[in-house]
Amino acid sequence: MDVPTTPFELEREHRAFLKIVRAVCEYDKDASALLERWRRRLGGATAHETIGKALERVERVGPKCVANNASFLSSAVWTFVDNERAPDHLRVPRAEVEKWAADDEFRAAPEDAEKVRYVLKNAWRDWSEEGKCERDPVYDEIFEALEERLGAIDASVGSPDGEAPRVLVPGCGLGRLVYELAKRGYDAQGNEYSYYMLLFSSFMLNATSRREEFEIHPWLHVRSNHRAAGDQWRGAHIPDEVPGDAKLPPGACMSMAAGDFSAVYNCANERGMWDAVVTCFFIDTGHNVVEYLECIANCLRSGGVWVNFGPLLYHWEDYESEQSVELSLEEVIEAAKTFGLDIERSETKMVDYTSDPRSMHRTTYSCEFIVATKR
Amino acid sequence: MDVPTTPFELEREHRAFLKIVRAVCEYDKDASALLERWRRRLGGATAHETIGKALERVERVGPKCVANNASFLSSAVWTFVDNERAPDHLRVPRAEVEKWAADDEFRAAPEDAEKVRYVLKNAWRDWSEEGKCERDPVYDEIFEALEERLGAIDASVGSPDGEAPRVLVPGCGLGRLVYELAKRGYDAQGNEYSYYMLLFSSFMLNATSRREEFEIHPWLHVRSNHRAAGDQWRGAHIPDEVPGDAKLPPGACMSMAAGDFSAVYNCANERGMWDAVVTCFFIDTGHNVVEYLECIANCLRSGGVWVNFGPLLYHWEDYESEQSVELSLEEVIEAAKTFGLDIERSETKMVDYTSDPRSMHRTTYSCEFIVATKR
Repeated sequence: MDVPTTPFELEREHRAFLKIVRAVCEYDKDASALLERWRRRLGGATAHETIGKALERVERVGPKCVANNASFLSSAVWTFVDNERAPDHLRVPRAEVEKWAADDEFRAAPEDAEKVRYVLKNAWRDWSEEGKCERDPVYDEIFEALEERLGAIDASVGSPDGEAPRVLVPGCGLGRLVYELAKRGYDAQGNEYSYYMLLFSSFMLNATSRREEFEIHPWLHVRSNHRAAGDQWRGAHIPDEVPGDAKLPPGACMSMAAGDFSAVYNCANERGMWDAVVTCFFIDTGHNVVEYLECIANCLRSGGVWVNFGPLLYHWEDYESEQSVELSLEEVIEAAKTFGLDIERSETKMVDYTSDPRSMHRTTYSCEFIVATKR
Repeated sequence: MDVPTTPFELEREHRAFLKIVRAVCEYDKDASALLERWRRRLGGATAHETIGKALERVERVGPKCVANNASFLSSAVWTFVDNERAPDHLRVPRAEVEKWAADDEFRAAPEDAEKVRYVLKNAWRDWSEEGKCERDPVYDEIFEALEERLGAIDASVGSPDGEAPRVLVPGCGLGRLVYELAKRGYDAQGNEYSYYMLLFSSFMLNATSRREEFEIHPWLHVRSNHRAAGDQWRGAHIPDEVPGDAKLPPGACMSMAAGDFSAVYNCANERGMWDAVVTCFFIDTGHNVVEYLECIANCLRSGGVWVNFGPLLYHWEDYESEQSVELSLEEVIEAAKTFGLDIERSETKMVDYTSDPRSMHRTTYSCEFIVATKR
């Protein structure tokens, strides 16, 4: 999505947004169908005491977990229903939601159902106490690099220059990193393209009202690789911190810009406007990583810093009809240099991403932590 | 597949086998289509020196790698063409292969193309020098546990009792573990259900003629997560050892049985016939893990040992219309006990499985290493 401006584009965006909101509303139906599949399979297996107990667990615990997840998801959706403060194209008419609820036949496409489940895992990563095990090893490195390069900020007095350093976080997902940067005294701006993430980051940052307000069950949807019988069903409470309660240091602030990173920031207006660009699990999400690098270089002032943390799992690789430029790390670094980004650190860090820490299957990324200066 | 016996079943198996052989023969076409996709994408991107060099690499190096992989794959297929020593239903008529070669339109189904690529990764794991990094941490634990429980065998004199301990390896894949067990003096039998694995284990165990006879490129098919530009294209030589050259210790031997584990071994004939059953990345591959446990218990003599190494990534979980019983590790252990398998060790070991050791994306399994005795 580019930034919508014409009425035609706004209408197209409105449709795209509603499609996603609808997929979120269908979560309950989709997850219940999964429970039904497990019930059927366990019920149809050879009788054995252990299988009987597993079936009983699906029947007794499963529906409560689905209801908890659905409650969190629909709370977020409802903040957009008839909301007069939301831009027109991100407003959900109540009549639409009621029409959907009455439509028994509809089922979200499998890829949309999967994306809704992914929101739950991201909510766990970014906004639960348990998710700290994934956040801290990544975010702490980023904070240290920024402090080293932009100077320390005393959160009680704010930025020593009066003006806080401006830090841009493209692909900011559910917004935790942007919030943490603002808390540390930066003028932090998140940028995000996905309506899934925009909907829920808006909710997490602006509409949660108390600590541990929701219980979610992010590992509910997969039966494989659980150690204990209860692991699949266990809950996490979100948020572990309420952004609305935070007092930001003087000069610090937090903002969000929707749209494709290159479309929004690769323009004269943004040239040299940023002290830092932080790409965290981001540079592999676009259609052309070289354009992203060019855009990062465009945004940074001379002497500004690019901090990168992530793998190179190119998002569009398997979409047959999409453009996708996939380069090795070596080539990414080579291309970055051509845009005046001088690499000063490049280190490998092994971290997990939205991966159940108790599971027998771990998705571990051998990430590259890069610190570079704009010439 | 159960063990085929009636003419109808044999004909069905013959068709299933030919379908898979044909998918193997189509590898060349499928991999070339991938190269073509990358060429088109890189060619259609914004001009940039790094992208130009990446394109040149796809064009110059890609076709050689595809040809090397295809050469290994078709060598295996050709050992079955008009082969009079193969059973009727596993014989490939030359006329069929020639008909396929002339059929420009045919493309293997994506899931079959994926399985052929998986064969290459398994060949790397089981039969290359580089694959030792995955084999050793797993196989060494298994060898130690067997030696501890069944006594040490001096490979130069063979089994001290004259009769070698009988070790069964269901789901033996490309056969390396079975071969290593025979080399260590056991009477080792592999069992395998998949025709992909049967075709290639037969080739690796019986038809390779010299060390490093083939060069394969197991990481060719994915563009994501490479560190160096050359990593995707790099080759591995197989086999690192020629099974035909090995002198097995006196009493030791190596055999293979095709078919579904429960169908072949959960019968009176096999009851108590085995000193050990080794399940290595296996118990999660069936439709019902409880039936597998029952079958393991059936095979073992009283005092015999079950050694397990693997995660619980249930193979059939995502196949909507298939039976699939998925239990947690806790429940698997509970069920094993009901079949008289007394668990003596249960330890977690982190290992990789067919995962490029240089990649930025690692699939790490938190495996359970279990040693149990049959009551």
